[in-house]
Amino acid sequence: MFNIKIIVQYDGTDFCGWQIQPNLRTIQGEIYKAVQKIYSKKITIYGCGRTDAGVHALGQVANFRIPKMLVPIEKVHIALNSCLPKDIRIISAEIMPENFNARASANFREYLYIVYNGDISFPFYERYAWFYRKNIINEKLINEYAKYLIGEHNFTSFCSTEDENDSKFRYIERVFAIRKKDNIYFIIRGNAFLHNMVRIIVGTLVEGQRKNKPLNFIEEIIKEEDRTKALVTAPAHGLYFRKAFFKY
Amino acid sequence: MFNIKIIVQYDGTDFCGWQIQPNLRTIQGEIYKAVQKIYSKKITIYGCGRTDAGVHALGQVANFRIPKMLVPIEKVHIALNSCLPKDIRIISAEIMPENFNARASANFREYLYIVYNGDISFPFYERYAWFYRKNIINEKLINEYAKYLIGEHNFTSFCSTEDENDSKFRYIERVFAIRKKDNIYFIIRGNAFLHNMVRIIVGTLVEGQRKNKPLNFIEEIIKEEDRTKALVTAPAHGLYFRKAFFKY
Repeated sequence: MFNIKIIVQYDGTDFCGWQIQPNLRTIQGEIYKAVQKIYSKKITIYGCGRTDAGVHALGQVANFRIPKMLVPIEKVHIALNSCLPKDIRIISAEIMPENFNARASANFREYLYIVYNGDISFPFYERYAWFYRKNIINEKLINEYAKYLIGEHNFTSFCSTEDENDSKFRYIERVFAIRKKDNIYFIIRGNAFLHNMVRIIVGTLVEGQRKNKPLNFIEEIIKEEDRTKALVTAPAHGLYFRKAFFKY
Repeated sequence: MFNIKIIVQYDGTDFCGWQIQPNLRTIQGEIYKAVQKIYSKKITIYGCGRTDAGVHALGQVANFRIPKMLVPIEKVHIALNSCLPKDIRIISAEIMPENFNARASANFREYLYIVYNGDISFPFYERYAWFYRKNIINEKLINEYAKYLIGEHNFTSFCSTEDENDSKFRYIERVFAIRKKDNIYFIIRGNAFLHNMVRIIVGTLVEGQRKNKPLNFIEEIIKEEDRTKALVTAPAHGLYFRKAFFKY
């Protein structure tokens, strides 16, 4: 058996998220069909991050096991791309040790969130950034707030009430915002994320600064362990799975 | 009467081009409906460049005449945007002299064309650039070829056989390509353009360098006055109406 790791980019707009579901267009489902077409076999696709509907990826990671190499490893991504729709592209493929798993072997996941803070929405960002025109975002204040997210915390307040994980403890390694002209880029890296966690963090930081919340308001929200204490969930279309880091 | 000039951006992907047509989604048609909604009157919209289906705009210009100012001129674009779909945005509005016409008063029109010359297509450019992977584009050679387009010429070879203009003479003021990483940006400025003219120019320059055509091959094609002598028509989705220049 060969254990193949792939890096995947997709425009999530026209997908019902990563996870395979009957009769719905999903990224995992499309990759599954492409792998099945090439290897004439039903093969499970393991993904690193289960992105929601509308969420994009610049460096999603997945793996699957094939009985033999039909094409050289340098050409696996080309063969898969020829069977995939244009809004999904495999950018590389690599043979990994047998026990590598895109989900279980990931130490850290990193997300990018883009907010467009211009005066008038930009038609070309409609699918790709959260247009936030209410006022000029103070990214310095956001970076002060964000410090309280760093470390291991119970993030019950920062996940959807539909989250099914037993433990709500997650470790956030970094979170910050940088402005380039009218765009604010958020980078958030953690060991793993609860359902909607990145979107609630971004929405709460952005709305928090607009409401001029105190510097430690995030700390207070974390303590409450109650989703209603955090602020809005930022829309899916500004979010990108950027990259994953592995133990080996 | 007030003669209002507007600057318009649009993602052309989901439109059947600029020009109003019954039962089809067009940019002129959507602006017409928005103006009618605000001024309760059927008002003709004049556009500077009649872009085709799939072609975008960063700075399209249009004008229309209204009997009275219902909102201050600084707020006209906001009122219109509230009635327009998100893939069209008016970025400014201005009162012009009575005889200003977005079409007739334009001295020059400038288009941008984006070619993505990476190894693997990028899902986020699918609607916004021509993915050309056949080989690495030599933009220096393209700029040598392009010199032969400058000036006034009969561009019969560089327009669609469906072009209905009586005269095929047009003046090109500048045309060049610049590379930024894997993107090649073409800038083309001329007094006016025939049907598909920018797309045939870009397609011919790109395919010409791939076929290693002689430096003066454009000159030879122009002389022939025959569309079949030029090369491919680059796809619509890489083309952007960038800006217009006016006599006053």
